[in-house]
Amino acid sequence: MQLAIVLFDRFTALDAVGPYEILSRLPDTETVFVAEQTGPVRNDGGSLTLTADRTFAEVPHPDLVLVPGGPGQTPQMDNPVLLDWLRAADATSTWTTSVCTGSLLLAAAGLLKGRRATSHWLALNHLGSFGAEPTGERVVFDGKYATAAGVSSGIDMALALAGRIAGERTALSLQLLTEYDPQPPYDAGSPDKAPADLVAEFRAGTRHPQN
Amino acid sequence: MQLAIVLFDRFTALDAVGPYEILSRLPDTETVFVAEQTGPVRNDGGSLTLTADRTFAEVPHPDLVLVPGGPGQTPQMDNPVLLDWLRAADATSTWTTSVCTGSLLLAAAGLLKGRRATSHWLALNHLGSFGAEPTGERVVFDGKYATAAGVSSGIDMALALAGRIAGERTALSLQLLTEYDPQPPYDAGSPDKAPADLVAEFRAGTRHPQN
Repeated sequence: MQLAIVLFDRFTALDAVGPYEILSRLPDTETVFVAEQTGPVRNDGGSLTLTADRTFAEVPHPDLVLVPGGPGQTPQMDNPVLLDWLRAADATSTWTTSVCTGSLLLAAAGLLKGRRATSHWLALNHLGSFGAEPTGERVVFDGKYATAAGVSSGIDMALALAGRIAGERTALSLQLLTEYDPQPPYDAGSPDKAPADLVAEFRAGTRHPQN
Repeated sequence: MQLAIVLFDRFTALDAVGPYEILSRLPDTETVFVAEQTGPVRNDGGSLTLTADRTFAEVPHPDLVLVPGGPGQTPQMDNPVLLDWLRAADATSTWTTSVCTGSLLLAAAGLLKGRRATSHWLALNHLGSFGAEPTGERVVFDGKYATAAGVSSGIDMALALAGRIAGERTALSLQLLTEYDPQPPYDAGSPDKAPADLVAEFRAGTRHPQN
C-alpha cells in the first residue's frame, strides 16, 4: 500500500503527523510526503519544517491519500495543481481522507458532493457550500472517504482506518505501541464541552492562540 | 519563553509533534528544533523528515526542554554531546520534559535520580537502573521534571504543562483549538487494557509493527 500525505505551506503539523504515526506502521506500507515541489515545507507556526520527498507528479496513484488542514489551506482552495492531483489520485485511490480543514480541499476538488463529512469545528459550515453534508462527528466515513474533525482527531480516524485496512488485531497493536490511552487533564476539546465564552471568542475571531 | 525540542536520528515523530502542537502555541513562545547538527533528521520509520534549525550550542538556555523518544534513543545513551547539553540546559531550565523513551536520555544524563518518572510501557523498568523511580502513570510531574509515557501521551503532558505555565484558560483554549476530545475506536492503549497475548508478543520482541 502506498500512503501519500499532502503538504503545503502553513499546514498544521499534528494533522499530518498524528495519522502518520499510525498509518505508516501498517504492514507493507510505503509512506510518502508529497507537495507541489520537493523540499522543506513550513507549518502554520513557522517553527516546524517537514520535508516533501516527492512531487505530486511523482505519486500519481497512491492507495491512500491524506490531506491535512491548517491556515495554509485557504490559498490552496484555488490551486489547480493540488486540486487536479487530488481528483486524479482519487480516481484510483482505495481511501481518500482528510484531517481538519483538509476536508475543504477535498470538497473544493469536488470529491465530497452529497457526502457526509466533517472538518475543524470552526470550518464545519463551509463544507456545505461545496455540496457536502457537514456533520459534527469526530470521524466520518462515507464510502471510501474518511474525514476527521480538528487537528488531534486524525489519530482516531487513523486507528479506525487501520482496523478497516489491516484488521482489528493490527489496529489494537498500533494503539498499544503508540500508547494511545488518552487522559486529557481538561475537558474542553469540543465546542460542546469548552466554556461558552471561549467558543464565542474563537467564533468572533478575537482569540487566535498564535495561529 | 524558549522551547527547545531535541531531535536525533530515528526519533518517533508524534513524541515531538504532539506536544509541539500545544506548547508552541503558548503566548510569547519561541520554539526551536535542536540537534547536534542543523539540517534534516529522519524519524524511526525513515519516511518522515523534520528539520533541526539550530544546533545544541546555539540554544544554551531554553526555558523548556522536551526530549522525544524512539528507537534512535538507544545510540544516544552514550552521546556526550547530547548528554552534556541536557545537563547544561537543565541547569537553567524552568521545565525539563520528555516523551516516551526520551526519559531514558534524561535519566542517562543523571537528571532523574530519586525522581518519579515514566516512559513507554516497554521501557519502564529501564528507568530504575538510572536511579529513577518508574511509575506506570501516563504523565508524571516531579518538581520541574515532567515525563510522559509512550508516543501519544505527550499531548496530555503538554496540556498539563500549558495549564501550569500559562493558566487554565489558555490550556482550555488550546485543547479546544486542537479539538482534543479523543474518541479512540478501540480500547487497547495500555498494557492493562490490550489483549494479554498482544502485550506478551511485544514484551517477547516477536511483534514489531514496522519499528
